[in-house]
Amino acid sequence: MATAAAEQGSERQQYEFGPYPINANEVFAKTQLSFAFVNLKPIVPGHVLISPIRVVRRFADLTPAEVADLWGLAQLVGKTLEPHFGAQSLTLAIQDGPAAGQTVPHVHVHVLPRKPGDFENNDEVYDELDKSEAHLSKLSEKLDLDKERVVRTREEMAAEAAELRKLFADS
Amino acid sequence: MATAAAEQGSERQQYEFGPYPINANEVFAKTQLSFAFVNLKPIVPGHVLISPIRVVRRFADLTPAEVADLWGLAQLVGKTLEPHFGAQSLTLAIQDGPAAGQTVPHVHVHVLPRKPGDFENNDEVYDELDKSEAHLSKLSEKLDLDKERVVRTREEMAAEAAELRKLFADS
Repeated sequence: MATAAAEQGSERQQYEFGPYPINANEVFAKTQLSFAFVNLKPIVPGHVLISPIRVVRRFADLTPAEVADLWGLAQLVGKTLEPHFGAQSLTLAIQDGPAAGQTVPHVHVHVLPRKPGDFENNDEVYDELDKSEAHLSKLSEKLDLDKERVVRTREEMAAEAAELRKLFADS
Repeated sequence: MATAAAEQGSERQQYEFGPYPINANEVFAKTQLSFAFVNLKPIVPGHVLISPIRVVRRFADLTPAEVADLWGLAQLVGKTLEPHFGAQSLTLAIQDGPAAGQTVPHVHVHVLPRKPGDFENNDEVYDELDKSEAHLSKLSEKLDLDKERVVRTREEMAAEAAELRKLFADS
């Protein structure tokens, strides 16, 4: 899987994450159809997101090529970040639609490097995950990926992406 | 994507889910490389599992063909079960490795049809999900897919699979 920017032809300056612009310096890996980017409020070290480049709300609406590409990139990113962050496992999840906690209307895979004991109860990782996507309903009151898009600065995110990008330069 | 049994050549009587046998009558959809089966303890109506037919513990160890096939089947299953169970969204998740709550050492995608208000807080769905896979460590004390493999009878599971199989007969 070619992820190096130079192999993708023309350089994008910006990506769309639903209604939010993602600067190219926050993207650390990409393929023909998908991109991997750092998160405004990671709940564990190395918690990143993978989205199709096309703005599609629901997983069902992705083409077979997009599904394969999205999860191929998620696999590569997970495999690469897990040892980089000293983790032993991964949580991989899509909150697909508002009733599942999605608020950014653009398919995104959460990739979270996991360590034994990183949460006292394993389910707490999802409590935290869900905090990032909410406010649409009672069930999602604890979530809000949008709201939390103020926690890190663009500079901090670009610095993390630059570090991670090195891991994918040759892949 | 061909899921009808007749198109797959010879009929399997049994599938492997890590160390556990899954009877063919608990499988409701399959592809060349993956199978979809009902769950011993679903936490919401229509909570099912999708696994590669090959017994592989970690997501990173799947081939590109297996990744594409697994998630293609998960997409089809989610798209089909969501309206069937009167749901509006889906939770799609892999607990990939022990530190992420995995106890059955075989990659499996959880597909959960979701409805507004099905859990008071969205994160509770993960509390319940995690209860199904645990006992390896403090962090996973609430989980155990294995332990909970006593809750439904084989007959109940076969009946549900038969009902779901009808939804996939022509796909």
